[in-house]
Amino acid sequence: MLYISDETIERWIKEDVPYIDLTTLTLGIGGMKGRISFKAREFTVLSGVEEVLRIFRKLGVTELQSLPSGTIVNPGDTFIIAEGLAENLHMAWKVSLNILEYCSGIATRTKRMVDKAKAIDPHSTVVATRKSFPGTKELSIKSIIAGGAYPHRLGLSETILIFKQHVNFLGDIHNLAEMIKVIKGKACEKKIIVEVESIEDARLLIESGVDGLQFDKVPAKDLRIIVAEIHNLNPNITLLGAGGINEGNIEEYARTGIDGIVTTSMYFGKPSDIGVTMENIQTP
Amino acid sequence: MLYISDETIERWIKEDVPYIDLTTLTLGIGGMKGRISFKAREFTVLSGVEEVLRIFRKLGVTELQSLPSGTIVNPGDTFIIAEGLAENLHMAWKVSLNILEYCSGIATRTKRMVDKAKAIDPHSTVVATRKSFPGTKELSIKSIIAGGAYPHRLGLSETILIFKQHVNFLGDIHNLAEMIKVIKGKACEKKIIVEVESIEDARLLIESGVDGLQFDKVPAKDLRIIVAEIHNLNPNITLLGAGGINEGNIEEYARTGIDGIVTTSMYFGKPSDIGVTMENIQTP
Amino acid sequence: MLYISDETIERWIKEDVPYIDLTTLTLGIGGMKGRISFKAREFTVLSGVEEVLRIFRKLGVTELQSLPSGTIVNPGDTFIIAEGLAENLHMAWKVSLNILEYCSGIATRTKRMVDKAKAIDPHSTVVATRKSFPGTKELSIKSIIAGGAYPHRLGLSETILIFKQHVNFLGDIHNLAEMIKVIKGKACEKKIIVEVESIEDARLLIESGVDGLQFDKVPAKDLRIIVAEIHNLNPNITLLGAGGINEGNIEEYARTGIDGIVTTSMYFGKPSDIGVTMENIQTP
Amino acid sequence: MLYISDETIERWIKEDVPYIDLTTLTLGIGGMKGRISFKAREFTVLSGVEEVLRIFRKLGVTELQSLPSGTIVNPGDTFIIAEGLAENLHMAWKVSLNILEYCSGIATRTKRMVDKAKAIDPHSTVVATRKSFPGTKELSIKSIIAGGAYPHRLGLSETILIFKQHVNFLGDIHNLAEMIKVIKGKACEKKIIVEVESIEDARLLIESGVDGLQFDKVPAKDLRIIVAEIHNLNPNITLLGAGGINEGNIEEYARTGIDGIVTTSMYFGKPSDIGVTMENIQTP
Amino acid sequence: MLYISDETIERWIKEDVPYIDLTTLTLGIGGMKGRISFKAREFTVLSGVEEVLRIFRKLGVTELQSLPSGTIVNPGDTFIIAEGLAENLHMAWKVSLNILEYCSGIATRTKRMVDKAKAIDPHSTVVATRKSFPGTKELSIKSIIAGGAYPHRLGLSETILIFKQHVNFLGDIHNLAEMIKVIKGKACEKKIIVEVESIEDARLLIESGVDGLQFDKVPAKDLRIIVAEIHNLNPNITLLGAGGINEGNIEEYARTGIDGIVTTSMYFGKPSDIGVTMENIQTP
Amino acid sequence: MLYISDETIERWIKEDVPYIDLTTLTLGIGGMKGRISFKAREFTVLSGVEEVLRIFRKLGVTELQSLPSGTIVNPGDTFIIAEGLAENLHMAWKVSLNILEYCSGIATRTKRMVDKAKAIDPHSTVVATRKSFPGTKELSIKSIIAGGAYPHRLGLSETILIFKQHVNFLGDIHNLAEMIKVIKGKACEKKIIVEVESIEDARLLIESGVDGLQFDKVPAKDLRIIVAEIHNLNPNITLLGAGGINEGNIEEYARTGIDGIVTTSMYFGKPSDIGVTMENIQTP
Repeated sequence: MLYISDETIERWIKEDVPYIDLTTLTLGIGGMKGRISFKAREFTVLSGVEEVLRIFRKLGVTELQSLPSGTIVNPGDTFIIAEGLAENLHMAWKVSLNILEYCSGIATRTKRMVDKAKAIDPHSTVVATRKSFPGTKELSIKSIIAGGAYPHRLGLSETILIFKQHVNFLGDIHNLAEMIKVIKGKACEKKIIVEVESIEDARLLIESGVDGLQFDKVPAKDLRIIVAEIHNLNPNITLLGAGGINEGNIEEYARTGIDGIVTTSMYFGKPSDIGVTMENIQTP
Repeated sequence: MLYISDETIERWIKEDVPYIDLTTLTLGIGGMKGRISFKAREFTVLSGVEEVLRIFRKLGVTELQSLPSGTIVNPGDTFIIAEGLAENLHMAWKVSLNILEYCSGIATRTKRMVDKAKAIDPHSTVVATRKSFPGTKELSIKSIIAGGAYPHRLGLSETILIFKQHVNFLGDIHNLAEMIKVIKGKACEKKIIVEVESIEDARLLIESGVDGLQFDKVPAKDLRIIVAEIHNLNPNITLLGAGGINEGNIEEYARTGIDGIVTTSMYFGKPSDIGVTMENIQTP
Repeated sequence: MLYISDETIERWIKEDVPYIDLTTLTLGIGGMKGRISFKAREFTVLSGVEEVLRIFRKLGVTELQSLPSGTIVNPGDTFIIAEGLAENLHMAWKVSLNILEYCSGIATRTKRMVDKAKAIDPHSTVVATRKSFPGTKELSIKSIIAGGAYPHRLGLSETILIFKQHVNFLGDIHNLAEMIKVIKGKACEKKIIVEVESIEDARLLIESGVDGLQFDKVPAKDLRIIVAEIHNLNPNITLLGAGGINEGNIEEYARTGIDGIVTTSMYFGKPSDIGVTMENIQTP
Repeated sequence: MLYISDETIERWIKEDVPYIDLTTLTLGIGGMKGRISFKAREFTVLSGVEEVLRIFRKLGVTELQSLPSGTIVNPGDTFIIAEGLAENLHMAWKVSLNILEYCSGIATRTKRMVDKAKAIDPHSTVVATRKSFPGTKELSIKSIIAGGAYPHRLGLSETILIFKQHVNFLGDIHNLAEMIKVIKGKACEKKIIVEVESIEDARLLIESGVDGLQFDKVPAKDLRIIVAEIHNLNPNITLLGAGGINEGNIEEYARTGIDGIVTTSMYFGKPSDIGVTMENIQTP
Repeated sequence: MLYISDETIERWIKEDVPYIDLTTLTLGIGGMKGRISFKAREFTVLSGVEEVLRIFRKLGVTELQSLPSGTIVNPGDTFIIAEGLAENLHMAWKVSLNILEYCSGIATRTKRMVDKAKAIDPHSTVVATRKSFPGTKELSIKSIIAGGAYPHRLGLSETILIFKQHVNFLGDIHNLAEMIKVIKGKACEKKIIVEVESIEDARLLIESGVDGLQFDKVPAKDLRIIVAEIHNLNPNITLLGAGGINEGNIEEYARTGIDGIVTTSMYFGKPSDIGVTMENIQTP
Repeated sequence: MLYISDETIERWIKEDVPYIDLTTLTLGIGGMKGRISFKAREFTVLSGVEEVLRIFRKLGVTELQSLPSGTIVNPGDTFIIAEGLAENLHMAWKVSLNILEYCSGIATRTKRMVDKAKAIDPHSTVVATRKSFPGTKELSIKSIIAGGAYPHRLGLSETILIFKQHVNFLGDIHNLAEMIKVIKGKACEKKIIVEVESIEDARLLIESGVDGLQFDKVPAKDLRIIVAEIHNLNPNITLLGAGGINEGNIEEYARTGIDGIVTTSMYFGKPSDIGVTMENIQTP
């Protein structure tokens, strides 16, 4: 349910091969047939497999078998096998490995966070921010979905999420509160969500008809109390916690009762460790 | 000395704003004047500043002051101030912050590794692999240079670096050894470098006229011995160590006497923590 | 609050001038200085002005004066004056005129619909569908905003809007009803909106916790009754009417009490009639 | 005989799905098999079918049957049936429908105008201007051809068509008349055509050797007289009428004896009404 | 009167600098100020100057002086001087030189052919085919115009030029002759031109109403006779000669009386010899 | 071992067919089946065949047989046969022919130079500069490799090649000499090569540890003496000769003992002469 254009697939190839593969050219092995295999070296939630297969097709490399993104694999599990000419296998190798390692790294970290949160509260939802490395949005989104999370908001065009940086132009939070109904009128299909820092601001906005509140960098133990209080005021308000949530403290946030645990932390960290082998299958 | 095209600058913007900024639109604040500032919250080697300034120009945001990539800043240091309409500042905000945080994160990690290596051996060189996140090559290269490292090889087109995955198509290391002179003839301007695993293979290739050797995942203490032995055989051979080298063990590798410490580890890890403030400067 | 890339601006130019301007070349007038003016020939809500100014800048044509998109102009009002070389004015002419006429046409039709709806109910909101001519999304969105409407949904990525074409994969409306809570859990920041055809289905979904309902092709007089009934059940449900709403019947729909009047009809129709004059200002 | 690039095909898809299909994702139906059908709801000259099939191929949707652009269909006629995964069918749905409805709308309006003109004069030719909505040139051209018209001129590069906006730089019509021979020398393969407003100017230019004349906004009854007079002077002059010609008055212009009836009016108007059904064909 | 997009300008830069300028980086001279000058080493008709200036602007290099494309320069004439940082001058150097040398080469060869033809017959016109090196169409067209020629046809979309490869699908030349009137009806604004090999075919087509004839590889002395004969039949037929015409024989073809001398030969041949100097203007 | 993106393949097509094929459209032959064949008219080293086959696939033209780039063909040899609809064959025709003629021209000239050099010295290597026509880098590289040469350097990113234009920023050659060791430390995997004009400079740099020297425009007989002298000093220095080397004098340079004969001269010159036939294979 995500379409990556051929132009993007080719941009990744050209990033690594702007002109030619000099090593393969000078070795003179380009026309020999070979087989490439990718194997997990640790617990991994796969992501990026479909994109690697598209790179293969662009380069005339034929898939023999593969496991889809989202599959959980363990050390020693081979998840892609393909065949082609050595010159094409060598052009595909590193860009494919990089995609798989970075994407699966995000998916695997996501999965661990989602599992921890759901172990505490099966209804909790982990939502990933839009703070991915510029140039990697599509792969990053794909990978957090592969790991079981959902996107918080994918960009500026889709939701109304009001920060202090917006309020500064309105005056203060009271000015915003007075506008909530007007904003709702303009965008009746969207929830109006505001990032707040205090329970007082939260109360004011709830009275004004806000649909949701996001709490930034509120410690989990404080947030739990705030959530309870807001649920008393209005159980329909969407509540989100964000800021500094990671694999180490997600369980505490899962206990707060918030509807969405907003985090960026799956986007960075060590890529998955994946092994590649390439064999000569040229019949002499 | 790196040119990033306007098309790429705009792709980053569109990644975050495929259509409109819905929040700013519904708040009706787009036409007000504001000022945006970026401030370091920790020790940071800046990277990505020039790209952020280009995003600003594309969006009609005027730079007031900035510090160039490569500058070291400390907590509290403001390094970019700019002014423009709220609608443009809000479109620029997150994509700019993301670029600065991810790039400066790479530059800062690089700087720490380079400093550690140079403290041991002032002539050591840290070289970064091409294993960056696909879609981020230009920003990644820029950032490792901002941090004081150099690129190992930027892609397949530029150097001759022979892996086991190439040798498999030739037969074995002896077949390769026999070919070294032929390869040199084809590409006399390039060094022929081979990744090896044992001192025996190294000796064979040195006799065959190889220009350099790369050792993968050889522990630093073993590598030190190997380097000494090779220097005895031929002091002109370029020697590289790669595989698992990171901030924790780079000092050990700096002691081995290798010419280039090859690493991927600066590419991933926590982005730098940078604060953004946006003020209303609209004169009433 | 909408960023159109330079690549798009240039694509429009090249659509009309794939190579050269043959007429200007063979006439030999390219190097003479001229002035171009655009003048309304009828009541017009301007749209596309900023894009035309960007085309001018790309072609070295200097703006002397202009009125921004969203401005209302009347027959005889000149709204853009610019100067440049004849060869650049002639390359800019038709593509600029086409942008202004099609965009202002959309904006003007939108304005008329919005005015009619607001005359009946000042709180009514006209929202434009995503059914614009493929290849024109950015200009179309810009134009409906210039005319006072808001976007319904800009694409598939941003909202949850469930049609019969989705329900067919779930089984029937009861299967969907059972899933509403689960869907809300996955996307707590979004409203769940379902297109329905009958009040029975509406009731079922409201009980299941849906956030909004869209009624397709329900006559205004029937819709008014349905809205009243639903407001009795739950006044917080977002209600949308869509299908066949246009300038001729929008007032009836504005009387129904729905939150959003969803329409496609501003996207097509006669472009605005705009006159262009070009003078020779070459000093002899 | 028109090649639309893959980049364009993909741009249309991404316009509607910048990231993901959120509805299909949260419903969890993406992996189910479905069948999509497009059916005419009115008399329609199809256009855009081939582009929709290319969108399908990009998204892994398999065509079962289709009718080519240019085919005439009637209410109830199904003209495309295809199968694929629900996640791909839903990404393809609206962009495909939009292409078909806008393009077939143009083709159908074109066909009606061509039929009316040919009923009066079987040798009359309807030629469509280049005043299509920027961003839609290829689809617009394709559609007018599907409807039986020909392009007037596709852009600035191909013909010599001199307007008052050119003459202003030369001085007046006499200056132009003196240049006609020179222009012919520079572009001997092209006809020199000039837009004129009076029979006096026409005479002057014919004497000077012009190849064709275009009359703008001359009423049909006046144009008929002018055509007769010019045919007396020189039967080889190409004569075109333009400006305000549409379905309502094209028959009058077909009676004037002009060689080409130049019009823009098929480019805008109501899109064709096409129905889409999507079924679940998942075997349980 | 030719617009080259920024995307193309940047593609040329990236062709030569896919990532960084390694030499300038390792020398550490990037931040020093320098001045670059381009000087003719032989008689040259300049072309490509404007494109080089755009490359300079993209790279932050400031033009001090320049002469426009089409200017004739002699050995020792400096025609571009610009200043900027060494890192930007070095990125601009070779791509700029290549553009200037290849484009000016085409312009200079064109000019020599045009001058030779006009010395024989001042009304003769040299028209360049569309057989330029794929990927260079815009630069090639610009350069032939700079040298005084005109384009024959720029691509397939603009003229009707019928070859044997078309006639093969119709049957034979008689089938074509019968269709000429029908074709004229479809495209009344275009001349119908047919490539023929014999005077018999020419006569047949002239009787059928063709507008022009192109003779391929007919020796100049034979062509002269044919032209005279056709002028007797109908002086209004456009006559073109093509195939093997070059600087060596163009004068003979100029004597034949044809309207257009069609040639490809300016597109290839030695690039112009242009010298580049770069000085250090860094104030210490 | 060179990947050309689909975007590039399509850019070539669109260069020749920005919109439609007007001739084929007006002739009404588009839907007939035909066969296209390409035949050598002279001794030719083929290049560009794979790209032509990709153009065919884009246009739905089916390859029946073909010979790969690098194949030597003689007058009368047919090397590509393909079938498809006339409308697609005609769109493919000229762009394919242009690619084949320009690329094979480069490959054939390369082959002749390589053969001449190897006849003198079997170990000599011809390396082609990066001075190809901007916009043609990929095709040019491919073609010199097809002809048996290797690339000198493909762009600025890959090698360290120091010209006078660099030295000017350092001061003089002595300043450079002092820096050689520092540069080697920064880029241990690369050879440091300097372009020099005198044997004195050469000696200085060799003492400083340079890896290679390039001599520009040194006559072959002088270069032979220099090479001998340098080989005496240090047999491991890479030696290159450049500047004015072409098919006429390459044998003299092959006798000098240099490692690489650097030349640009294969990039320009007459394209190969290739014949195309197109037959009607429509069964009646």
